Amino acid sequence: MTERAVPDTTFVYDFAQGSRERRDLLGGKGANVAEMTRILGADRVPAGFTITTEACVAYMEADRTEPDGLAAEVAGALARLETHVGKRLGDDADPLLVSVRSGARESMPGMMDTVLNLGLNDRSVEGLAAKTGNARFAWDSYRRFVQMFGNVVRGVPSERIEATIRALKGEHGATLDTDLDVDALRELTARFKTLFEEHTGEPFPQEPGEQLRQSIRAVFDSWMGERAIHYRRINRIPDAWGTAVNVQQMVFGNKGDTSGSGVAFSRDEVTGEPEPSGDFLQNAQGEDVVSGVRNTRDIAELAEIMPAAHAELMEILRTLERHYGDMQDTEFTIEEGHLYMLQTRNAKRPAQAAVRFAVDAVHEGLLDRDGALLTIDASALDALLHPTFDPSAEIHQLARGVAASPGAAKGAVVFTADEAVAAAAEGRAVVLVRPFTEAEDVAGFHAAKGILTSEGGKASHAALVARGMGRPCVCGASTLEIDVEGGEIRAPGGVVIRAGEQIAINGSTGLITTDDVPLVEAEWSEQFETVLEWCDELRTLGVRANADTPQDARRAREFGAEGIGLCRTEHMFMAADRQPKMRAMILADGEEERRAALEQLRPLQQEDFEGLFEAMAGVPVCIRLLDPPLHEFLPQRHEVEAELADLRSAGAAEGGAGGGKIAELERTLVRVKTLEEVNPMLGTRGCRLGILFPEIYEMQVVAIFDAVLAVRERTGKAPLLEVMIPLVDYETELEILRELVLDAATARGLTVGEDFLVGTMIELPRACFQADNIAHHADFFSFGTNDLTQTALGFSRDDVESKFMGVYLDRKILDRSPFETLDTPGVGQMVRMAAWLGRKTKHQLKLGVCGEHGGDPDSIDFFHHSGIDYVSCSPFRVPIARVAAARAAAKERAAAQ
Amino acid sequence: MTERAVPDTTFVYDFAQGSRERRDLLGGKGANVAEMTRILGADRVPAGFTITTEACVAYMEADRTEPDGLAAEVAGALARLETHVGKRLGDDADPLLVSVRSGARESMPGMMDTVLNLGLNDRSVEGLAAKTGNARFAWDSYRRFVQMFGNVVRGVPSERIEATIRALKGEHGATLDTDLDVDALRELTARFKTLFEEHTGEPFPQEPGEQLRQSIRAVFDSWMGERAIHYRRINRIPDAWGTAVNVQQMVFGNKGDTSGSGVAFSRDEVTGEPEPSGDFLQNAQGEDVVSGVRNTRDIAELAEIMPAAHAELMEILRTLERHYGDMQDTEFTIEEGHLYMLQTRNAKRPAQAAVRFAVDAVHEGLLDRDGALLTIDASALDALLHPTFDPSAEIHQLARGVAASPGAAKGAVVFTADEAVAAAAEGRAVVLVRPFTEAEDVAGFHAAKGILTSEGGKASHAALVARGMGRPCVCGASTLEIDVEGGEIRAPGGVVIRAGEQIAINGSTGLITTDDVPLVEAEWSEQFETVLEWCDELRTLGVRANADTPQDARRAREFGAEGIGLCRTEHMFMAADRQPKMRAMILADGEEERRAALEQLRPLQQEDFEGLFEAMAGVPVCIRLLDPPLHEFLPQRHEVEAELADLRSAGAAEGGAGGGKIAELERTLVRVKTLEEVNPMLGTRGCRLGILFPEIYEMQVVAIFDAVLAVRERTGKAPLLEVMIPLVDYETELEILRELVLDAATARGLTVGEDFLVGTMIELPRACFQADNIAHHADFFSFGTNDLTQTALGFSRDDVESKFMGVYLDRKILDRSPFETLDTPGVGQMVRMAAWLGRKTKHQLKLGVCGEHGGDPDSIDFFHHSGIDYVSCSPFRVPIARVAAARAAAKERAAAQ
Repeated sequence: MTERAVPDTTFVYDFAQGSRERRDLLGGKGANVAEMTRILGADRVPAGFTITTEACVAYMEADRTEPDGLAAEVAGALARLETHVGKRLGDDADPLLVSVRSGARESMPGMMDTVLNLGLNDRSVEGLAAKTGNARFAWDSYRRFVQMFGNVVRGVPSERIEATIRALKGEHGATLDTDLDVDALRELTARFKTLFEEHTGEPFPQEPGEQLRQSIRAVFDSWMGERAIHYRRINRIPDAWGTAVNVQQMVFGNKGDTSGSGVAFSRDEVTGEPEPSGDFLQNAQGEDVVSGVRNTRDIAELAEIMPAAHAELMEILRTLERHYGDMQDTEFTIEEGHLYMLQTRNAKRPAQAAVRFAVDAVHEGLLDRDGALLTIDASALDALLHPTFDPSAEIHQLARGVAASPGAAKGAVVFTADEAVAAAAEGRAVVLVRPFTEAEDVAGFHAAKGILTSEGGKASHAALVARGMGRPCVCGASTLEIDVEGGEIRAPGGVVIRAGEQIAINGSTGLITTDDVPLVEAEWSEQFETVLEWCDELRTLGVRANADTPQDARRAREFGAEGIGLCRTEHMFMAADRQPKMRAMILADGEEERRAALEQLRPLQQEDFEGLFEAMAGVPVCIRLLDPPLHEFLPQRHEVEAELADLRSAGAAEGGAGGGKIAELERTLVRVKTLEEVNPMLGTRGCRLGILFPEIYEMQVVAIFDAVLAVRERTGKAPLLEVMIPLVDYETELEILRELVLDAATARGLTVGEDFLVGTMIELPRACFQADNIAHHADFFSFGTNDLTQTALGFSRDDVESKFMGVYLDRKILDRSPFETLDTPGVGQMVRMAAWLGRKTKHQLKLGVCGEHGGDPDSIDFFHHSGIDYVSCSPFRVPIARVAAARAAAKERAAAQ
Repeated sequence: MTERAVPDTTFVYDFAQGSRERRDLLGGKGANVAEMTRILGADRVPAGFTITTEACVAYMEADRTEPDGLAAEVAGALARLETHVGKRLGDDADPLLVSVRSGARESMPGMMDTVLNLGLNDRSVEGLAAKTGNARFAWDSYRRFVQMFGNVVRGVPSERIEATIRALKGEHGATLDTDLDVDALRELTARFKTLFEEHTGEPFPQEPGEQLRQSIRAVFDSWMGERAIHYRRINRIPDAWGTAVNVQQMVFGNKGDTSGSGVAFSRDEVTGEPEPSGDFLQNAQGEDVVSGVRNTRDIAELAEIMPAAHAELMEILRTLERHYGDMQDTEFTIEEGHLYMLQTRNAKRPAQAAVRFAVDAVHEGLLDRDGALLTIDASALDALLHPTFDPSAEIHQLARGVAASPGAAKGAVVFTADEAVAAAAEGRAVVLVRPFTEAEDVAGFHAAKGILTSEGGKASHAALVARGMGRPCVCGASTLEIDVEGGEIRAPGGVVIRAGEQIAINGSTGLITTDDVPLVEAEWSEQFETVLEWCDELRTLGVRANADTPQDARRAREFGAEGIGLCRTEHMFMAADRQPKMRAMILADGEEERRAALEQLRPLQQEDFEGLFEAMAGVPVCIRLLDPPLHEFLPQRHEVEAELADLRSAGAAEGGAGGGKIAELERTLVRVKTLEEVNPMLGTRGCRLGILFPEIYEMQVVAIFDAVLAVRERTGKAPLLEVMIPLVDYETELEILRELVLDAATARGLTVGEDFLVGTMIELPRACFQADNIAHHADFFSFGTNDLTQTALGFSRDDVESKFMGVYLDRKILDRSPFETLDTPGVGQMVRMAAWLGRKTKHQLKLGVCGEHGGDPDSIDFFHHSGIDYVSCSPFRVPIARVAAARAAAKERAAAQ
């Protein structure tokens, strides 16, 4: 992010002036086009200029008024462009045509609006026809311009445009646009202009300067359009960035069979294999490729049709990849055999392609390991951990489409994003099925397990978005007729699948089925293993897992966890065989009875710990003593009341039977009422339980130590044991409970610092402020960032997420949930303060994070920079955490260079 | 508090070496005796030495082992004492006798144990008898020593001692102790020694060195005794301070009619009138006076009996008061006409006496106003605000006792502290009635409205403790027979009052009645008004009141509030005529219906505001927009369910009646369920409501502004309006809602900064960290320290206070409730951080406190030192806050000198 203190007062840059370093100012597209111009030469990139993001910001800040000087600068740049090209915009004889495209700092595919062929009007179209000797091309260009300008700049509805085309095609018996002849196109242009005038109340603007001015405004306005806002919310892009506008000389892929347009990736964008991939359409403009409306041809076929252009393209892709040090996603146009590069950017790609690229890039010498790691988006790796179809399952193929985003998914068919969102809210698994998708469907991608479309390819909206989100996606399954209105999919052979019926897709193969295929865990590629090994060497932040059972513990180690950062002992009490004993303990009258009940639980706890310790020999295991309020182990009040009422009326009918059960329930009810809390989150839990009922913690500590001794005796090994006291506010709480732990240890010949450590969770704001004092009694801190977020923000997770988080995201109060990514300005500062204060007291204090943020890449980056020793997350997130930790270290090294 | 880094290695100081500055080391009594020795001369104060608090700390830290060197130092000091006095401890012919008394840093009356006449044994008692020519005195002294040593040092039960005395008196036909002759006392001594041996298994120690060693240990041990611990908890004295031990030459008030002992105050300790007061007993030792067992004589009578000693005493009291600059509470003994001062300390006194003294001290030139203020304990002023009997009521006197602590109280009679505590927990008003009170009754003082005893005077335990706590108390109502066992009070004329029946006392007059006397508000003395006026001049911290109604507002102004710091608008919605409208608003379907319901509420809100604004013309009124979660305005779920069940069964019986009501209840139930929250404290409340339902805040803001305009129109005046947005976490929340407020203002021609301010409550930890950003959108901050305490500590007030606060106080984790006095290390630091960050952004940002801590003197002191501009508290606490704020400023000035 550039410093904004001194705003740039130059609003327009020629492509030849820019470079990729000026991305913040020129936008991603502008910077890259400039960069391409620099490295590929002016011959390969149509000339043009970029109106800066600063201009957009100034426009928005002035309530949609162009800033002073902008018009003059645009006029100057246009004049330079006209000189460079040797044509004049709107020239009656040989007009310069330009495209106007948005280009934000971060690529926002499909979000921003584009106008092509600007500069045509009723006179220049004739000039173009004459000059090119191709009247059809000229009129096709003009009608496209009127259509796009009307739609994009002035809001003429797509449906009316489509209806106009449909009607005309019908009149002319045409199926494809290309079936329309010059007269038909001339007629279509006329009808579009009429439509324009009907819709806007103004004639279609003939003056090219006015066309340009309105188009630039439209790009600016589209930045604040609903779709763009939604995309930014999902992709966490600040509204204040603004977009740049690129005005570029038009080149034409629709000038006949020696022309064409396409997208090309420097490597396979799905698998990452080191072969360029892509799609193209002959005799078409670029928008036709990206829109997914016409089915594209594979880039490899270009070698046959236009071998020279293909060879040039291949060479250029290699050059760009080397230059950018990353896989490239390009757009190109071939105009009568001449290859033009319109755009390049780092390719969005699914996790497996990212991993494959990273490994190959290192082996090819393209990047070093740090550099390679920085090309991987750790969050996206989730996709590698997605289930796939069970390979042994016999699957009946319903249809096949383009494997657009890897991973398998199954669920009930829904046809709209709204339905997907509603279903997800109810916890139902659904697959979103659409002919094609658009920006307004994005919310449905989040909610659905997978996405299926009948149109578009790997570069379609659906494919791009699904890959970005790590959602399995199959695109372009053209044998399926997806009838959204009718609420059904019509498949070959008369098969009909209705909304709500099950479907399954494999985004890695393109297979679609209605079978109830078993899904199996992701199997990691060799490359992923390689990357993870590098990560373990490159990172400095430790990665542990949260695991409560021996099975979890083993899985955690398989995923590469270096220990257990949080074992929640309460989960052990929730098991069916434990719960009655736990309840007996809670219902006990007085300490003696409670101790007796605890004695029933102790051997079970010890058994659990032994299993855990055997699975974690030689690595740290951090065990948290009982944390939740006791009422969580009891039935709900209304359950007990209902059962009592039933028993009483039954008893009354039977003349007094069931008295024993009634008495028991009455006793339970009394205790349930006593333990009820208005705000359980802020109630009698954590170490408060240990202070009130030391016998509970004593039992747990004895079970832990006896388990260590038993495992050591049996196997000769033991974990590096850490006993953790939760929810500490006051140093005295920890002092008292540490004493309790040490007493039990001493009685068993165990020594703190050698055989085990005693530490605390830091999960209350007060504890952060008192961390220096608390550290006197702690060998380690583990930040419980979930609860710290709840208390620091006053957000009850149970209530907030369902009740107002959505509105808060809409209103831009939050850019993401603070339960997903650490709220660094608040909670993060508390973590840093506590880390600093704790280490002030004890230089070597071990610091960990055991909240869910420990598995979130952005949060991990923050923790890396906050002096945290390790994060701990769910076993499935461990690989992501390993990569995120390594990336954080790599970023730090890169910044230090 | 002295620095403890380098411990003092001298454990014993002679009185002649000490001074009052060394209070931390020598304890209050030791320091004062040393000081008295210095200013009154060695002739007036019996010689002795003090064993330091450091020695006690070392003893406790070494698990009750005397530190090295202590024994040798004691021996040395004793030798110097013997040389000074010219007698030897335990000498057979002319023994030196000493007292051993505890003396902590803060006076702990009745808590610590005392041994008198140490040095007597079977031989030296004969020497004393021969030397004094008073065998009765010698044996009375010896039997007292054996009795006290046995009881205090070795734990011989009081009951057995009392029984022994009673039996012997019976055998000798004696009523009073003084009726016993030498032989009887000799016999009594023998019986006490036998009792000692029975109880301890050892003979009574004859060796004076051993007597002394055991006594010193006993004082040390008593520091950790239950009673002392309880007192410290109540009085917030750290355990780690330890107590000093004072060993002092005995002087004897029981050497006949020219001897006596007493307590004397330099002014009247109840009213503060500038006349010395006190009690004495002729021919008695000091313990007899303080114990309250014998009814004492007024100090004025001493002038008749021993005029010289009386004159000397009066002169000494003046000297001491001048020297200490405070009212003195002394103990003296007259031995055969010679006046000895045994102790002096600043007198504990009820609020009215404190106020009276402060005013007189300034008028007399004894103190300046700052100094006078510092003699007033602001917390104790509460007593001035206690109710009194309605002066117009005709009251039938049941009995009369000593007016021991001012204020009137009435309630049901209880006879034990436990009953008082139980009653208070149920919200019942009770009066604790005891023959006399002891340390174990202290919990009952907290719980009872008032205390009544039949024994003891103004210096009795009951009187001291009640005054300390500001509880009305009548002592020594000797015409009442208080039969704790029998559960009744027998009054003159055969009146019997049983447990649970009503009694009323007037602690300012000593009157006791069973009438249901109306109680009236406290009327302030002229002196109190004077003090409050001074306070307003001396303080720099503003004092406002929390008030929601015009009545409250008017009362607040009467109490001296300078404005309203918190007007909770939700209280307006709770009123009976508002609640249905509020419910309609909450039950509304969609914004339109909600707006319609709000329109019903708006005129009512406006009316409330108009009343408030008229009462507060020209002063600030801070109005908080709606804060509590909406479900607080709806009935409880189980209530609705129960009503529904009733209606349905009734409906079934009647064949379908009540369907409309059922539908309404069903609708309510749905909304109640939707709005239910797991942790309402952390849920959808505060500004979150304003974000979710802007129409609610809009309605409130419109009502506020229209009210201001209406009042301005009608009266030409308006308050200094402040609109406050609660529960802000994110600056964007405040930004959005400030905009909403400003829009409504602009529409009415009102200007922020001129006609009103917009600010926020700082009550979440995150907000403290983001205060610099939040301040961009705030004209003021008001710290909501109640909620900040809840979130910072993770303490739900509703749950914590009842469920574990008691245990936390017992375990010394807390020294007081963080809801009563601000938790400065945690919450206090957050307040300071937010104040600093907020002022970093806006130098002139107005800072207030509107939590209950705003009425707590210790918290006020903290706020004064934290740059806060004003505190706001309940109207009744306003005078206390004014004094506390002035004291904080006075302390600061004193420290700066």
